[in-house]
Amino acid sequence: MERNLESPDLRHIHITDKLFGEYVKKVSEVMIPHLWKILNDTLEDAEPTYCIRNFRIAAGEIEDERRGVVFQDTDLYKWLEMVAYAIAGGQGKEYEKLADEVIELISRAQEKDGYLNTYFTVNAPDRKWKNLAEGHELYTAGHMIEAAVAYYGATGKEKILRIAEKNADLICRRFGTGEDQMRGCPGHQEIELALVKLYRVTGKKEYFETAKYFIEERGKEPNYLAGEIAGRKGPEFFPELKNCDLAYYQADMPVKEQTEAVGHAVRVMYMCAAMADIAKECQDEELLAACMRIWESATKRRMYITGGIGSSGFRERFTTDFDLPNATNYSETCASVGLMMVGQRLAMATGDAAYYDVVEQALYNTVLAGINIRGDRYFYVNPLEVVPQFCTEHTYMDHVKCKRQKWYNVACCPPNLGRTLASLGQYIYAQGKDSIYINQFISSDMETQLQQGSIRVEMESELLQNGRVQIKAVTENGGKLKIRIPKYAEGWEVSDSSLKNCGQDAGGYLVLELPAGSAEFTLRFAISPHWICANPEVKEDNGKTALVRGPMVYCLEEIDNGRLLSQIYVDADAAVKEMPPMENLVGEVPTLTYQGLRVKNVVTDGSLYGRLAYETEKVTCKAIPYCMWNNRGEGEMLVWQKVKIL
Amino acid sequence: MERNLESPDLRHIHITDKLFGEYVKKVSEVMIPHLWKILNDTLEDAEPTYCIRNFRIAAGEIEDERRGVVFQDTDLYKWLEMVAYAIAGGQGKEYEKLADEVIELISRAQEKDGYLNTYFTVNAPDRKWKNLAEGHELYTAGHMIEAAVAYYGATGKEKILRIAEKNADLICRRFGTGEDQMRGCPGHQEIELALVKLYRVTGKKEYFETAKYFIEERGKEPNYLAGEIAGRKGPEFFPELKNCDLAYYQADMPVKEQTEAVGHAVRVMYMCAAMADIAKECQDEELLAACMRIWESATKRRMYITGGIGSSGFRERFTTDFDLPNATNYSETCASVGLMMVGQRLAMATGDAAYYDVVEQALYNTVLAGINIRGDRYFYVNPLEVVPQFCTEHTYMDHVKCKRQKWYNVACCPPNLGRTLASLGQYIYAQGKDSIYINQFISSDMETQLQQGSIRVEMESELLQNGRVQIKAVTENGGKLKIRIPKYAEGWEVSDSSLKNCGQDAGGYLVLELPAGSAEFTLRFAISPHWICANPEVKEDNGKTALVRGPMVYCLEEIDNGRLLSQIYVDADAAVKEMPPMENLVGEVPTLTYQGLRVKNVVTDGSLYGRLAYETEKVTCKAIPYCMWNNRGEGEMLVWQKVKIL
Repeated sequence: MERNLESPDLRHIHITDKLFGEYVKKVSEVMIPHLWKILNDTLEDAEPTYCIRNFRIAAGEIEDERRGVVFQDTDLYKWLEMVAYAIAGGQGKEYEKLADEVIELISRAQEKDGYLNTYFTVNAPDRKWKNLAEGHELYTAGHMIEAAVAYYGATGKEKILRIAEKNADLICRRFGTGEDQMRGCPGHQEIELALVKLYRVTGKKEYFETAKYFIEERGKEPNYLAGEIAGRKGPEFFPELKNCDLAYYQADMPVKEQTEAVGHAVRVMYMCAAMADIAKECQDEELLAACMRIWESATKRRMYITGGIGSSGFRERFTTDFDLPNATNYSETCASVGLMMVGQRLAMATGDAAYYDVVEQALYNTVLAGINIRGDRYFYVNPLEVVPQFCTEHTYMDHVKCKRQKWYNVACCPPNLGRTLASLGQYIYAQGKDSIYINQFISSDMETQLQQGSIRVEMESELLQNGRVQIKAVTENGGKLKIRIPKYAEGWEVSDSSLKNCGQDAGGYLVLELPAGSAEFTLRFAISPHWICANPEVKEDNGKTALVRGPMVYCLEEIDNGRLLSQIYVDADAAVKEMPPMENLVGEVPTLTYQGLRVKNVVTDGSLYGRLAYETEKVTCKAIPYCMWNNRGEGEMLVWQKVKIL
Repeated sequence: MERNLESPDLRHIHITDKLFGEYVKKVSEVMIPHLWKILNDTLEDAEPTYCIRNFRIAAGEIEDERRGVVFQDTDLYKWLEMVAYAIAGGQGKEYEKLADEVIELISRAQEKDGYLNTYFTVNAPDRKWKNLAEGHELYTAGHMIEAAVAYYGATGKEKILRIAEKNADLICRRFGTGEDQMRGCPGHQEIELALVKLYRVTGKKEYFETAKYFIEERGKEPNYLAGEIAGRKGPEFFPELKNCDLAYYQADMPVKEQTEAVGHAVRVMYMCAAMADIAKECQDEELLAACMRIWESATKRRMYITGGIGSSGFRERFTTDFDLPNATNYSETCASVGLMMVGQRLAMATGDAAYYDVVEQALYNTVLAGINIRGDRYFYVNPLEVVPQFCTEHTYMDHVKCKRQKWYNVACCPPNLGRTLASLGQYIYAQGKDSIYINQFISSDMETQLQQGSIRVEMESELLQNGRVQIKAVTENGGKLKIRIPKYAEGWEVSDSSLKNCGQDAGGYLVLELPAGSAEFTLRFAISPHWICANPEVKEDNGKTALVRGPMVYCLEEIDNGRLLSQIYVDADAAVKEMPPMENLVGEVPTLTYQGLRVKNVVTDGSLYGRLAYETEKVTCKAIPYCMWNNRGEGEMLVWQKVKIL
């Protein structure tokens, strides 16, 4: 299999998909203006973020204290990155002027030496680089750099790239193993993958070297973060980090020695993304192996069927193998975005299509669940089971919201989701020397240049409706089309036998030889609804089953099935019927119906406990895609349903 | 039914029970010396408590900083109270000298004006009474007073009573509605019930009035605790109380307006105990009604079948009706001790035997589970379902210990349990004008004086073995014997038809007229193992069943049934057999066996998810009393088992 694949230019990929097209459109039509209001504190009934105001204060245009969380600047950077991708995708041109003004503001907030962080510039200039564990300075810089690379990539405008370089230059001077350098590493990874991106666009090797340094320094003895934390009396920014362990930061041992996904889920993913990038860049097989080990730990033993990760709501973290509670979990939207980032990078580094099974699982389920179909409400936490009245304050259910929120105080997820949707093309296509890779079956078109000449691909996917994907490829001088065969496909065939079919390569891709000129064919995947069980070690899911169809995990909602969903038993032998999509949802995805049993305990007088007695009632269950739950009001939701044991 | 019953003198009750006798013996043989070592920091491999040392420092005998949690003094007070009850019960005479020395030490640590609290005396004399929300000053004083009343009651020695009075006098001067008084109330209730006890033993009305004041002041506007908390920047003693709600302290509204059990479970119970006491004393029907409402909320909608309360591990608190998760719950041993205290008081205030059903449920299950059969290891948290590998640090399972601990940093439970076991007699018997009440069927004998003359009762209970209870009553001039008929009894009969049987009274007590002289009879309860289900609103228990026999809840342990207990299904129609008691356990309580089904998901290659497939295997399940789990090594444990739906 071919290694070291690349992402095609986002400017030449357009999403036309029935389902994802709806969400992508919402990014420019709803999310960008909605989040803009939030950044400017003009959204009604939302807590102020102070975000834009903070930049104005840092720029010396307003005199005031800087407010909001210490990494609030990243909201603006992720907004800018999202705008950049929208522009690249041809859907955000109208925001370019606004973005240019934002960039001017950022420029004015940057200090002469390149330092850029409104919190420390305004509130604590003498505390710069002194609290890497919690201060998020390098994390914030990373998001700025990612936005810069994205905006430059979308528009070719260099202003923001210069800001990023100036900031990155400062970081590269400051951090490293040199005598006059600080031997620190960040509490929240992000700078590493950003510096790799900046290196790729500028060619400046020092950015790459500093990214590599941060990865290598992490968890090494003498342990920088341990020393820094011990040197403070207590937490400075996040009281909840008191007595926190080094594993939370993935800094309890050197990165290359790590074998498990431990600690804060988003941190693990951002770290792994950089590990894959760096390993690919310098062919560091040891680093790649470490990244793959952590990936295996995360996805083979610690991941929800929805592609959610981070099963403890406490500290948003990974726990233990097979510990996957369905109601108290975190499964942060951002963590699944991170999972997509890592899967994509590992697939590109190795040529192994299997990574995209997980990317797809995360994308179609947890990531899409992060946003409502109107585009203006967001989930941060993604449980697999909700009973609204139990999600109360001051309990272990405090973090679980029963409906998507307008905004969050720590607002990483909405713009992270926005930038992911706006740059979806990178997850659909990849390219090698003479090949185009189709990794996701999301209707779109793309153009790029291969070694032997140009290629244009048009994909019309009805995967979620009937498993059919129509593909048209027009090449200058031929080429290969490599198509991922997803794990859930029960069978597949290519309609046009005139194409040279080379079978599946070692990475699992179906390889088709394209002639020069035009080729058109239909790929038919056999997909049907089916019932899934979990590994017996997953205590929570023993005796339960989940319904999936293709990449979609389905769930029951109260609005369709009544309350007390925990009373429902599935007869796994009964047929599951594909029915028309639910009204008021998007993407034309079938509703699934099946016979079930409702088992009602009979307890006299509403007592709390009584002699075991129950009544059964046959019911018809209606399941909808998990990602679209809570689009029709608040109520119970359930993924893992009880199985009637025969 | 007769109201306003009294507790007989503990000095004239002796426990001879097969089961409880073992535990009561452990109090004097193991717990008292074990905890004494802990108080003196001489127990190996245990964190120092500094408890005795702190008193020495306060007494001016050592110069040092005072260490340990702010309410650490209560460990010594509860130890003293436990010793007092042991002495009263005839089992702790050898500790009396030590106790007298302790009392001398306490006396030396008391300030001239009566103030007594090692933390504030030594570390923060200028902070006295300034942090009632968190400082536990009144709580600590309450435990001192309870110990004093107990020790005086057991020995007749007045020294400790004088210390308590001097301290209580100070509190009564300090707190109240007078112009020169402070209008405060405690963050943790306890002083109220203690002052009532002190009033009862001294007859000094001001103690009662101050107790009543504290109950009445709580939650009133202007809200003392709200003001005090707002006046501080953040928590002083417990960082985890940052942004805590007033409901946590049951101070969000006046006590008489409260309708639900909310907030910290132990606080609720200690408050209700005082409410029942005060209501009984002044015939305050409104206060009694409020107490009964909170009791109903706690026991009819928010209690585990084991008599555990406080279903959220976060802040050890009550949550919402029917929110009863089995693995992440708190169900603190102390909270169930509190439940026993309230139930007993409500039963004595009203004459209603039904309160003792709950007292018994808590005692036989959660409270007894709090201690191992050797007497030297303790549970603070009492889950109904444990998988050891999931109980990891830095997660929502952090608070759940898979084995009983030698000691806890916040060590309220072990001595609370000890004082409860050592004073068990108060839960077994009560007395009215001309009646003795038998509330629990725990082998014991007692003597007391009724209006018409003396009475001696000897009870030989084989309730847990065969449902038979032999009772011998010897009276001077006759009297009534009122026997609670427990809810779980499927039938009952009295062997001696020569006794005048007046049937059940309105409170549910079977009333027997005793002749002058001796009467002997056997009471036979029909009890058999049976399966219980929960109210359908308890999401967690839908599809599940628990096995009970009499007051005992049973559980499965890994040692008898293998791991992955979540795979087991119960065939509720199959017979449950009573088998000989498990070796190495105590009390001669039968083991229960029954046919079950083990349903194993089949997932290839250890994958995390796969197509639904399972194998079934018939298994014989062995269940033991829940209270005795984790006495034979660490492993999985399960109360609520899956039901095979027919």
